[in-house]
Amino acid sequence: MAFTYNRLDKNDVAVLLVDHQSGLTNLVQDFSPDDFKNNVLALADCANYFKLPTILTTSFEDGPNGPLVPELKALFPTAPYIARPGNINAWDNEDFVKAVKATGKKQLLIAGIVTEVCVAFPALSAREEGYEVFVATDASGTFNKTTRDAAWARMSAAGCQLMSWFGIACELHRDWRNDIEGLGTLFSNHLPSYRCLITSYMAGMAAKK
Amino acid sequence: MAFTYNRLDKNDVAVLLVDHQSGLTNLVQDFSPDDFKNNVLALADCANYFKLPTILTTSFEDGPNGPLVPELKALFPTAPYIARPGNINAWDNEDFVKAVKATGKKQLLIAGIVTEVCVAFPALSAREEGYEVFVATDASGTFNKTTRDAAWARMSAAGCQLMSWFGIACELHRDWRNDIEGLGTLFSNHLPSYRCLITSYMAGMAAKK
Amino acid sequence: MAFTYNRLDKNDVAVLLVDHQSGLTNLVQDFSPDDFKNNVLALADCANYFKLPTILTTSFEDGPNGPLVPELKALFPTAPYIARPGNINAWDNEDFVKAVKATGKKQLLIAGIVTEVCVAFPALSAREEGYEVFVATDASGTFNKTTRDAAWARMSAAGCQLMSWFGIACELHRDWRNDIEGLGTLFSNHLPSYRCLITSYMAGMAAKK
Amino acid sequence: MAFTYNRLDKNDVAVLLVDHQSGLTNLVQDFSPDDFKNNVLALADCANYFKLPTILTTSFEDGPNGPLVPELKALFPTAPYIARPGNINAWDNEDFVKAVKATGKKQLLIAGIVTEVCVAFPALSAREEGYEVFVATDASGTFNKTTRDAAWARMSAAGCQLMSWFGIACELHRDWRNDIEGLGTLFSNHLPSYRCLITSYMAGMAAKK
Amino acid sequence: MAFTYNRLDKNDVAVLLVDHQSGLTNLVQDFSPDDFKNNVLALADCANYFKLPTILTTSFEDGPNGPLVPELKALFPTAPYIARPGNINAWDNEDFVKAVKATGKKQLLIAGIVTEVCVAFPALSAREEGYEVFVATDASGTFNKTTRDAAWARMSAAGCQLMSWFGIACELHRDWRNDIEGLGTLFSNHLPSYRCLITSYMAGMAAKK
Amino acid sequence: MAFTYNRLDKNDVAVLLVDHQSGLTNLVQDFSPDDFKNNVLALADCANYFKLPTILTTSFEDGPNGPLVPELKALFPTAPYIARPGNINAWDNEDFVKAVKATGKKQLLIAGIVTEVCVAFPALSAREEGYEVFVATDASGTFNKTTRDAAWARMSAAGCQLMSWFGIACELHRDWRNDIEGLGTLFSNHLPSYRCLITSYMAGMAAKK
Amino acid sequence: MAFTYNRLDKNDVAVLLVDHQSGLTNLVQDFSPDDFKNNVLALADCANYFKLPTILTTSFEDGPNGPLVPELKALFPTAPYIARPGNINAWDNEDFVKAVKATGKKQLLIAGIVTEVCVAFPALSAREEGYEVFVATDASGTFNKTTRDAAWARMSAAGCQLMSWFGIACELHRDWRNDIEGLGTLFSNHLPSYRCLITSYMAGMAAKK
Amino acid sequence: MAFTYNRLDKNDVAVLLVDHQSGLTNLVQDFSPDDFKNNVLALADCANYFKLPTILTTSFEDGPNGPLVPELKALFPTAPYIARPGNINAWDNEDFVKAVKATGKKQLLIAGIVTEVCVAFPALSAREEGYEVFVATDASGTFNKTTRDAAWARMSAAGCQLMSWFGIACELHRDWRNDIEGLGTLFSNHLPSYRCLITSYMAGMAAKK
Repeated sequence: MAFTYNRLDKNDVAVLLVDHQSGLTNLVQDFSPDDFKNNVLALADCANYFKLPTILTTSFEDGPNGPLVPELKALFPTAPYIARPGNINAWDNEDFVKAVKATGKKQLLIAGIVTEVCVAFPALSAREEGYEVFVATDASGTFNKTTRDAAWARMSAAGCQLMSWFGIACELHRDWRNDIEGLGTLFSNHLPSYRCLITSYMAGMAAKK
Repeated sequence: MAFTYNRLDKNDVAVLLVDHQSGLTNLVQDFSPDDFKNNVLALADCANYFKLPTILTTSFEDGPNGPLVPELKALFPTAPYIARPGNINAWDNEDFVKAVKATGKKQLLIAGIVTEVCVAFPALSAREEGYEVFVATDASGTFNKTTRDAAWARMSAAGCQLMSWFGIACELHRDWRNDIEGLGTLFSNHLPSYRCLITSYMAGMAAKK
Repeated sequence: MAFTYNRLDKNDVAVLLVDHQSGLTNLVQDFSPDDFKNNVLALADCANYFKLPTILTTSFEDGPNGPLVPELKALFPTAPYIARPGNINAWDNEDFVKAVKATGKKQLLIAGIVTEVCVAFPALSAREEGYEVFVATDASGTFNKTTRDAAWARMSAAGCQLMSWFGIACELHRDWRNDIEGLGTLFSNHLPSYRCLITSYMAGMAAKK
Repeated sequence: MAFTYNRLDKNDVAVLLVDHQSGLTNLVQDFSPDDFKNNVLALADCANYFKLPTILTTSFEDGPNGPLVPELKALFPTAPYIARPGNINAWDNEDFVKAVKATGKKQLLIAGIVTEVCVAFPALSAREEGYEVFVATDASGTFNKTTRDAAWARMSAAGCQLMSWFGIACELHRDWRNDIEGLGTLFSNHLPSYRCLITSYMAGMAAKK
Repeated sequence: MAFTYNRLDKNDVAVLLVDHQSGLTNLVQDFSPDDFKNNVLALADCANYFKLPTILTTSFEDGPNGPLVPELKALFPTAPYIARPGNINAWDNEDFVKAVKATGKKQLLIAGIVTEVCVAFPALSAREEGYEVFVATDASGTFNKTTRDAAWARMSAAGCQLMSWFGIACELHRDWRNDIEGLGTLFSNHLPSYRCLITSYMAGMAAKK
Repeated sequence: MAFTYNRLDKNDVAVLLVDHQSGLTNLVQDFSPDDFKNNVLALADCANYFKLPTILTTSFEDGPNGPLVPELKALFPTAPYIARPGNINAWDNEDFVKAVKATGKKQLLIAGIVTEVCVAFPALSAREEGYEVFVATDASGTFNKTTRDAAWARMSAAGCQLMSWFGIACELHRDWRNDIEGLGTLFSNHLPSYRCLITSYMAGMAAKK
Repeated sequence: MAFTYNRLDKNDVAVLLVDHQSGLTNLVQDFSPDDFKNNVLALADCANYFKLPTILTTSFEDGPNGPLVPELKALFPTAPYIARPGNINAWDNEDFVKAVKATGKKQLLIAGIVTEVCVAFPALSAREEGYEVFVATDASGTFNKTTRDAAWARMSAAGCQLMSWFGIACELHRDWRNDIEGLGTLFSNHLPSYRCLITSYMAGMAAKK
Repeated sequence: MAFTYNRLDKNDVAVLLVDHQSGLTNLVQDFSPDDFKNNVLALADCANYFKLPTILTTSFEDGPNGPLVPELKALFPTAPYIARPGNINAWDNEDFVKAVKATGKKQLLIAGIVTEVCVAFPALSAREEGYEVFVATDASGTFNKTTRDAAWARMSAAGCQLMSWFGIACELHRDWRNDIEGLGTLFSNHLPSYRCLITSYMAGMAAKK
């Protein structure tokens, strides 16, 4: 069976961050809060680092769902920001789709809360419209692992590619030589175990002198 | 690869609740009893809320399997109710299939006990007859997680879509503006963590005045 | 080694519900939300059913911790209610201790959020003052199981007795004959699997006639 | 700190099987049904094999709790059998305590359903009366592992010794030479992995000839 | 997408039990020994109950793998029995394939030890030859769950259907009316929780008289 | 049994941070790296916030264990820093003990890597010298959970109190009114779920105006 | 649906060991260190035993990732060794691809650290170029199980076959008669439980004499 | 409460290795086979490295339990070796106790299979005779974690100290300066993650030159 490896191309991908709101974040139970916060911010840092067009959207910020977490607002001050008046599937919102199309990209990288709704619905809609869809699995959270497993199966069956933020960063960067320090900083900030490797290494280097 | 997003359409879906009987419920070990009871009733409330035609069926109510749980009887007083005399696969029962066809819907949303039999068998039969099949994963229970995993894999391979009751509610509703209060009430009654978000929010609003 | 079995005595126990507030409830990750809600309400129903003097207390209701969950307010409309102005350990609050002492009981049954603080601190203080302390383990929640395990060990080492709401109900009731229907209803409302046993049994009885 | 090893003495131990009833068994979720059935029957076989006086007791057999599981009835046809009219703690029942005292033993080995009530209550009462108490942990079941952990901690703090049926059998037997075949049969019947070792060994022996 | 539900047909299925040997059984760690023994014997009882042609095969019985477990030998005294001299994939053994073909069936139901080798290899070979292949997941065991997951994924990707013995029994039986007592006995013998439901039910019936 | 509640007293406690080195951190597998990093820094922030005398010590910084993680160095620029030349138990090092004694405190709060050595050894030594010992369980890590459980049991049996950093912060602070903003900031920085509560709350307050 | 069983053919497979470096190994948390070390060396021993052309590659050996683990260097002293100057996906490195092509094999067996990057990227690239790709799942490690699950799903969807080292060894060997002692030694060295079976068996044989 | 830290003293400890036989090892399911093998051999290497008097004992080597694993035989060629004719508790065997007493040590370090019998029984007997008892938790295995937990609790309550082999090695060694290379080699051989730290460190050192 022939297979084409559609890999993330930093020149052809837009990032969609869907409903990372303070109230909704408190519903997430398939990651520890520390892990989840780190994963979301790591994905956001990737988006910025690779200068990927990024679209923010929220659902009912004025109600119990709460506002977009301030860290994301701060990281993307000029990004299109669609506060949806009611559409559950962001793709049902014309402004959102318009913003997506305006990026001119054919790959979409999606993360959100909760996985089976805010991520899966636009992911499936985007697949139907012919986009290559990548799900940032660990920057997307939901009520429990059972629900997550079902959501992943549904998206996978639809041809979405499931990736972690670390895999995403690596697939976008392609070659360390493009910017060793930049990528290293990204990893150091969001992979504590990698940061420790660097610390030990640096200590060895310093001792050398 | 072209993909069509067959999403749940509240005008074109029938709900099949298969063998949620008191004896069989006591066999379920892949959810905590509290979680399972809540999930089944949440799905039932969705069916009522969206006015979806719903069919109840049971297997050997007079024997060890026990009667349909009374809560479901009470929620669907006028629904077709097929007490199967012996067919294990509900789809092998003519009356059941007749009731399904009488709804005129092309999407079927199935839940039941136990997952690998009472859910999977009619789900696969319905797929063969061309229906779009959606499985309410968390309102379906079985002996253990190993068995559930195998059952999900089989249904997924047959083109069934695996969804949680919450995803189902969201995909049916489409837009909060269709009825904010109704959907909010549904969530508040079956998502304790969402209910807490609402409580905190309401307290803030009340303080405002 | 001599051992005295200090068992819960419905004539000598007061119940302390500490900080079951909507915001704090959303921090709990060592129980599923459905299980936790059910456990807290089951304990509350026990307190009412056995007419145990019950004291409610909260911490900073007007801030992010949120108000007491409304269900508890509704179940104990006339209970002493101490909204603590700042003391983290409820036992550091004079009004709270006064309310406890006013009950004249020598056994205290405590539950709260979060386990290692709002439960453990007053539990240890009460032990120091000579009370027999019982912790309602499953109506108390916290950030994760690691933290809970450590908190349980600390309280256990201090002579607190760890019990689930079901064990509490049974130890208080002593004999089904005191009120079969009352206890049966309590179990039916909060133990879905026991409710199913009753349903099956009742169906058998009905068939007999 | 001085320590006395009170070990099970087959001449000085009585076995108490508390509420292993068909309905209650369906509430057990801290063991798989296969494991639990095997453990209970293994403990019963031990009691018979070592000719330990055994007392059966049940709670409300005519109601939803269901009858004693028939296998236990069949294994102890002449054992004292106390169908308690209402006492939740078996030790609150005079006939039960009379039957225990009639055995003249100072060690009690207890198993039952559910652990935190039907096992823990009489275990603590027996401790108070000066008995050495041993809990057959794996022949005792309850709603979930969280509840079990709390119950174990409470009994352990009261000086009860927690043992598995296999440890019990070994501590009672003391020396294989007392009856190699008898003990081997007991293990072969209830430890599938040990049975396989025997099978392999026997095959080797047979090949030798 | 069109889908055909190839369901187990008791007139068209042969059972392959591959390498359930005493030594190899001691390698299995993805099921408890009690669960695994029960599952294997339950599958074997199904094969006998439905009179399915069954083929036994082993690998190196005289070596460390040990002999076929005696229970299986006893249950299928006249079944073809191929002691493979060396082929790891049973399908590489001409006698085995000949025995399979001699059954004239087009559906194969396979279980064995270990899952990723003794089950997966002949399963994939059989798929290549056009058979419909069903894997009895819970009567197949291996070193750990990680390995099992990979093996299931490989077989599932090849179009094998994953089923538990209980689902197999139900799909073969189709209708309780074919033989209520026979199927009930099969379940009672291998599903302790179902046996308890029957016990409770029978007690209710007996009380009626 | 009389019980004294020795609670953490911010005027009488010293903090010992033992061997949080970059190499050793990479051995920790009983916490996720994100959780562990957050817990260690949260404990360090507590020590600073409450102005607790803090002692840093390391083992073989120049070898594979690596240097102290730079974040800790930065947080405690003037703290006593004992680079042990070889003593595995920090308490065997005279300089370390001298530094501890110099604080004049009678309560010691210990965290380190790995739990069963670098934490447990000085904890037990300090107990022997009459100190009240508190272990910061979640800022201490080791190879796996089995090892951790055994280490906890050993320290608990020696009279050490096991606490999480959050419980520590609360027991030190006693009363929110001592500094609402300071404690709130500490929680906001190290409890992502609490930070979300604050964010939602602040949004509500802002909307009010 | 037609299916072809592409099984590993020892005459047509090359092994790619990607980035098994000392620093990266310390990032792996989805296997215990003992298991992971054993799995990697078992796969390497297979490669040597079956004389499969093997290619070693590393990423930034001079930096924090650390050198190739010395055991692998020692096992493949003459293998092509590509120290990649920066390409994250080994397949993006011309020398690496040249080395792969020079083997003339059409099956590739890949393992590495971390699974979702160093394994998945070249696996997908190789699939695109028409290779049959086999992933040695248990000789590949990553940060956690959630990430691994997503990586497996992505590779599986691309037609890669997921196998454990044991399944790989068996599929390569085909028939024990090809070399009983050789394969037995491989298993004895890397499967402690199989080694025990052999020990028991040998003891029986020795006793015979 | 006064506390004495009885720490392992290499001049006053004897090691008891109880029933590490090939058949019994295959019953162990609370550790992976790789982990368990490594732990047992690590403990044995400690005993040799610190020149601790070591006693080997087995139960029924000629039967299904199998011979002592050959690695242990090889490591202790001149150690007392008591093949017990039938006593389950090794302490019931006079020769064994005589051998223990002949060492003249007052600390005993015990490991064995299975934990709740072969370890717990002699551990409790030794406690009764006044020995300080240390259990090597991770070099002792049993049927499942539930059983292990109960066994640990029983030994802990009797004053046994639970330690891992790594903690044992560290408590015996006291100070790296006693022999840096020796201890480093021990760790490198049995802690793969520590070995990687050393490898990375050595590479840095080599680069320096």
